[in-house]
Amino acid sequence: MSYICAANFGQYMFEVQGSDRETKARAGLLHTPHGDIPTPVFMPVGTGGTVKGILQRDLTDDIDAKIILGNTYHLYLRPGTEIIKAAGGLHSFMSWGRPILTDSGGYQVFSLAGNRKLTDEGAVFKSHIDGSRHLFTPENVIDIQRIIGSDIMMVLDECAPFPCDHRYAKKSVALTHHWLDRAVQYFKATDPVWNKEQFLFPIVQGGVFDDLRKISAEKVAEAGMAGNAIGGLSVGEPADEMYRTIEIVNGILPQDKPRYLMGVGTPVNILESIERGIDMFDCVMPTRNGRNGMLFTSEGIINIKNRQWIDDFSPLDPDPPSSVSSTYSKAYLRHLIISGEILGSQISSIHNLAFYLRLVAKAREKILEGNFKSWKESMVKKLSERR
Amino acid sequence: MSYICAANFGQYMFEVQGSDRETKARAGLLHTPHGDIPTPVFMPVGTGGTVKGILQRDLTDDIDAKIILGNTYHLYLRPGTEIIKAAGGLHSFMSWGRPILTDSGGYQVFSLAGNRKLTDEGAVFKSHIDGSRHLFTPENVIDIQRIIGSDIMMVLDECAPFPCDHRYAKKSVALTHHWLDRAVQYFKATDPVWNKEQFLFPIVQGGVFDDLRKISAEKVAEAGMAGNAIGGLSVGEPADEMYRTIEIVNGILPQDKPRYLMGVGTPVNILESIERGIDMFDCVMPTRNGRNGMLFTSEGIINIKNRQWIDDFSPLDPDPPSSVSSTYSKAYLRHLIISGEILGSQISSIHNLAFYLRLVAKAREKILEGNFKSWKESMVKKLSERR
Repeated sequence: MSYICAANFGQYMFEVQGSDRETKARAGLLHTPHGDIPTPVFMPVGTGGTVKGILQRDLTDDIDAKIILGNTYHLYLRPGTEIIKAAGGLHSFMSWGRPILTDSGGYQVFSLAGNRKLTDEGAVFKSHIDGSRHLFTPENVIDIQRIIGSDIMMVLDECAPFPCDHRYAKKSVALTHHWLDRAVQYFKATDPVWNKEQFLFPIVQGGVFDDLRKISAEKVAEAGMAGNAIGGLSVGEPADEMYRTIEIVNGILPQDKPRYLMGVGTPVNILESIERGIDMFDCVMPTRNGRNGMLFTSEGIINIKNRQWIDDFSPLDPDPPSSVSSTYSKAYLRHLIISGEILGSQISSIHNLAFYLRLVAKAREKILEGNFKSWKESMVKKLSERR
Repeated sequence: MSYICAANFGQYMFEVQGSDRETKARAGLLHTPHGDIPTPVFMPVGTGGTVKGILQRDLTDDIDAKIILGNTYHLYLRPGTEIIKAAGGLHSFMSWGRPILTDSGGYQVFSLAGNRKLTDEGAVFKSHIDGSRHLFTPENVIDIQRIIGSDIMMVLDECAPFPCDHRYAKKSVALTHHWLDRAVQYFKATDPVWNKEQFLFPIVQGGVFDDLRKISAEKVAEAGMAGNAIGGLSVGEPADEMYRTIEIVNGILPQDKPRYLMGVGTPVNILESIERGIDMFDCVMPTRNGRNGMLFTSEGIINIKNRQWIDDFSPLDPDPPSSVSSTYSKAYLRHLIISGEILGSQISSIHNLAFYLRLVAKAREKILEGNFKSWKESMVKKLSERR
């Protein structure tokens, strides 16, 4: 019998604390073994056990990240489950005391690995590091995530490419649903490794096909897990199609459970999705684009490499989300990024993540105050500017 | 007439607070416009206006760097003096409130730049960044350092290669001395740009030739500047020759002025040089080698990439010099370095610099307590171990 005997498998991990009257936006609280998470929330991506370029103490003290994301694919390949197990799980390995969500590895198998082959059994793939062959199944990615000890685990899914035709997407959704059944069954039959409750989120797929998204959302809702996710968006489709898909799916997913939109997106994408009832986000954009000189500021989006900043000694952001944003000037950061200095990546990443975290915290505040809609409209306008 | 009218040109910037009875080691205090510096001191290298991989707040709060070094060559090429001037000097540009020492660019012209040509006038060289042609003279490197606003400036010198024959070394020393005369004259005739006193240190050269080192040390001592430096060591010669050269030079350089050994070295090199009367050090080793996985610890020197650390979850150092040294494990840092993660460079650099800073602080304490010699012997033994 399972270690966690609660027959509900954690579906009461979430409480809605306030709902916007004009939109579908809501503010909530996620309860996890490593602490509560106010929602909407943005999760910095900590691929291989590190949010690139940021010390853990800066994640808590300067950015105030409530939860971070780890990639099962990366962690499984390096350092490997044996090391993570010997360390006592990922929290201990990376000295991180707050919650962690891990994806299932499905997305990376399709975006990073070589020679992948899908069967009913699972996904065979080659490591992008050393070419070695591996198999991910709905069951073994749960085993891996049990060892990692993430607070929230994700089911193995196929993230179909964009564009793809209806025929392919339908077949892909069927495979994802087959894997979902096995994942849920295996999840219920197994225990956490680290004596702490873990949640499993299923993932809605179906590309931009409304009929498939509906079927998938119903399937996911029926699984009765503690929270649910929407995958396969922000993969190249127009933003309008993404928003339409979110509306369809969120009309079906239960109101009383958290909804996680995977891998999205720009600040505007996030605000539009919060309006449509999304609670959780992750995206590499603030760190990856930051390393390349893209800054999200209260004055709009900036490419710090542009010549216009060469002698602009004003702070990175007049409304600084983090201490680095007021300490350093645009001209200094431009110099660091142009020179390929590590410190440029560090400062951009801290600033951008702090910007994202403050944005979702502000959205939460506005939802609870009852004036989300007008605030969001003004923010979308501001954040669409490029300077 | 010069802005700073003090006819001594700052020679009273230094006070010796304690001298070891058994050795030439001494503890002192350097007074600069940006604060006092207890000696012996180690200066982290901040080449292009950044100590690679380290936020300025971590340099002060975690490492407690009392002064950092900037490279005139790098700063002149990028961002360039125009930008540094517009920023109000380097302190302001990089948001660093503590003292800065800048080298003259001489060393980089020989180690980095292409197509260099030496004349009486100065050094013509090609930028390693874009191949553009430039000229450094004894005068214009002072102009550049005036704009940078460093607390301590260095004279232009030729750092002769090792090995080189006596004939070449003699010619090289003559050129360095010719440049020194011009530098001192120009220094006395010009004012600081930022209304703050700046000191100029001349540099003793002469390779490993005792006669040339004596001549050069006498020449440098006669210049009557506030402090003096020894260059051209740790360029490939055996450590014993370096120590012998230091002894010869320090026998001639004035006791009441600080002595700066440029670009040295390992922790053992530093202790041996402190014993021989050196007060100031800089070296890229703790950061550059740190980025590559070499850790200086209280248990000896570690190559963190070695397989033996793969599942060693003990802290980086049982006697942690910085907070990262106790927060993170050897296995975690190994994983980061092996994976090429930025955070690996950050943690190694903070740890190693904190280790160096603590080592010289401890040396100072032991000198003042009067038991430097025995402590040094035990430390040299410890620090020579490789694990």
